[in-house]
Amino acid sequence: DMNEDVIDIDDPFARDPQRHPALMINSLKPFNAEPPPELVVDSYITPNELFFVRNHLPVPVVDPKTFRLEIEFSSGKTKKFSLDDLKKFKEHTITASLQCAGNRRSEMSKYKPVKGLSWNFTAISNARWTGVLLRDVLQSAGVTLTNDEIKHVQFEGLDKDPTGAPYGASIAIEKALGPFGDVLLAYKMNGEELPGDHGFPLRVIVPGVVGARNVKWLSKIILSDIESQSHWQQNDYKGFSPSVDWDSVDFKKSVAVQDYPCQSAICQPKNGSEVHRSEETVVVKGYSWSGGGRDTIRVDVSGDGGKTWKVATLQKEHQTPYRAWAWSLWEVELPIPADGKKMEIICKSVDDSYNVQPDSVQGIWNLRGLLNNSWHHIAVDVKEE
Amino acid sequence: DMNEDVIDIDDPFARDPQRHPALMINSLKPFNAEPPPELVVDSYITPNELFFVRNHLPVPVVDPKTFRLEIEFSSGKTKKFSLDDLKKFKEHTITASLQCAGNRRSEMSKYKPVKGLSWNFTAISNARWTGVLLRDVLQSAGVTLTNDEIKHVQFEGLDKDPTGAPYGASIAIEKALGPFGDVLLAYKMNGEELPGDHGFPLRVIVPGVVGARNVKWLSKIILSDIESQSHWQQNDYKGFSPSVDWDSVDFKKSVAVQDYPCQSAICQPKNGSEVHRSEETVVVKGYSWSGGGRDTIRVDVSGDGGKTWKVATLQKEHQTPYRAWAWSLWEVELPIPADGKKMEIICKSVDDSYNVQPDSVQGIWNLRGLLNNSWHHIAVDVKEE
Ligand SMILES: [Mo]
Ligand SMILES: [Mo]
Repeated sequence: DMNEDVIDIDDPFARDPQRHPALMINSLKPFNAEPPPELVVDSYITPNELFFVRNHLPVPVVDPKTFRLEIEFSSGKTKKFSLDDLKKFKEHTITASLQCAGNRRSEMSKYKPVKGLSWNFTAISNARWTGVLLRDVLQSAGVTLTNDEIKHVQFEGLDKDPTGAPYGASIAIEKALGPFGDVLLAYKMNGEELPGDHGFPLRVIVPGVVGARNVKWLSKIILSDIESQSHWQQNDYKGFSPSVDWDSVDFKKSVAVQDYPCQSAICQPKNGSEVHRSEETVVVKGYSWSGGGRDTIRVDVSGDGGKTWKVATLQKEHQTPYRAWAWSLWEVELPIPADGKKMEIICKSVDDSYNVQPDSVQGIWNLRGLLNNSWHHIAVDVKEE
Repeated sequence: DMNEDVIDIDDPFARDPQRHPALMINSLKPFNAEPPPELVVDSYITPNELFFVRNHLPVPVVDPKTFRLEIEFSSGKTKKFSLDDLKKFKEHTITASLQCAGNRRSEMSKYKPVKGLSWNFTAISNARWTGVLLRDVLQSAGVTLTNDEIKHVQFEGLDKDPTGAPYGASIAIEKALGPFGDVLLAYKMNGEELPGDHGFPLRVIVPGVVGARNVKWLSKIILSDIESQSHWQQNDYKGFSPSVDWDSVDFKKSVAVQDYPCQSAICQPKNGSEVHRSEETVVVKGYSWSGGGRDTIRVDVSGDGGKTWKVATLQKEHQTPYRAWAWSLWEVELPIPADGKKMEIICKSVDDSYNVQPDSVQGIWNLRGLLNNSWHHIAVDVKEE
């Protein structure tokens, strides 16, 4: 088909990359999609082509040879780095999960409608990221924690809105420079070049922090006394009380989401699927993760709607204290109840700060539908024959 | 009365200090008591004599002149420090709240009985602690994060059980040496010498971490590849799934509580007190705190049992990111509902990692009654005249 190679020059999304057909699409332009739950629990490391994609804008097409990362210091001076310049710093690989702030928004919307992409429960993935430490690059330029003029590190991407404004976000200087922050300027994902949808040729990985601050197609770093003034840092990706509505909301009064709270979800069996009473047990699988370097220490799973709980077996790699950036996959075998046509399955996790997930959406509902980390519920039909 | 000066030499508690009569006592020997809620919200800094007391054993009587802190290094070598030796290091003052892991246990017990002291909801207090940084003392002896043989810092107190074993606990080396850990060897509390009940002459303040690791009457620090082997680190102060009972519990399978999850409670009005409908509003006050250096960013308060929420005004001091060690006090004026004989008031807090408190005790119940941070509920009677 000749048309496959024809690019509509009026469509800013026309040069977006090819995507894997298994991805569950929430929006085409910009492209937003998540992997099917049954594939999520298949592998501790999410394959690049199945990693959830959260694009705010068209994917920029970048020539790695002419690409430069610019750093603007608090003096106003700037310095440019080619990819080869960056690769002179010590290379590090870290395993880190990223999660969209809107993961599980569709469940929150069922309680009361919210604004935003209707993510299911797998806008989260786990990869090995290779690059150089932002800390090393900044320290080589003399940036230290003792400089009181620098409170935030702002990031800009090469992806631009119709007015020409780049995607932007920022993090605290303590996260960037602290010895346990592990913020990475990443050029590889699972051993391969970064895919176009994940920031080729360079993105920042801010482990433990909500996806939105992990700026892709990273082109500029600004050391500043203030947060990024971008729409996404100032007027989006903030939480509110359940009683705040679009008439009363004041984004200035809330705090930008950074570290993510603890989360877990059931990926197998599927909600609404069938089990047979004669099988006696059902294997339940899912993921759990907590931000801020906190590790999952326990996942409780119930097969009777929360009356009793069984502790799941966790699959995870060793991580050092305060630097647990990667998720856990988990598995548990639950007895199928002796009677009843439905089996209600719930999971909830505990992190190493003994933070837990809230029981329900009621208390965490917010108008942007962010950070739904309530207990995850599914129900399966129990068949008799 | 002559008897006041007579000490029963067979009673190991006979030399315990005098206490303030306002403290609400949970146990006399050892002494465990908490301040009345109405006094808690009276002052951001808790006066020394009203600070909650959690003693596991009799209070040791220590001569500060002969007192020595011993540090045992991974080589097995030891070094002793007098108080004057320690005071040669740079002095620091930090404001930090301490909370007992058993705070609010009495509410958890109402859901289903647990073992432990029946704390009400004010086993938490806030003070300014002055001392020297453990990090500075260890670094002066050449201890660094790159030493793989050291994973934990163990603490021993001068308080001993009947077998002669000291109270003990440990923390991760990353907390002790990290630049944002702020672990203090404290000799002053709110500008005064440490009171006997709070560790005179020296205690460790591990900010953001559960009270039990903030060892009082500190006499020994051991740098080790393993955690403290004390009863309190190994077989106590650990959380479990709600379905674990005393027949099935295996303390080896759980993780010692360190950083505390987010917490809040209503201190005013009192549960069961009266309000008058003609007053139209009621002022509600309380505290909120989160461990791990996380700050409270919002407290939601409901006067209608959770149907609607009003955001409270927070009273707190400036704290730097990742190092928010002190609580917030909060206040909100709620409308008294137009009808009904009871007004059900609930509070719940959000920390800067957007961690929230769980809705109910049901999912966090554990056989030791630890870490009850469920939404705090009270009810007041609404009078008509
Ligand atoms: Mo996101
Ligand atoms: Mo405690």
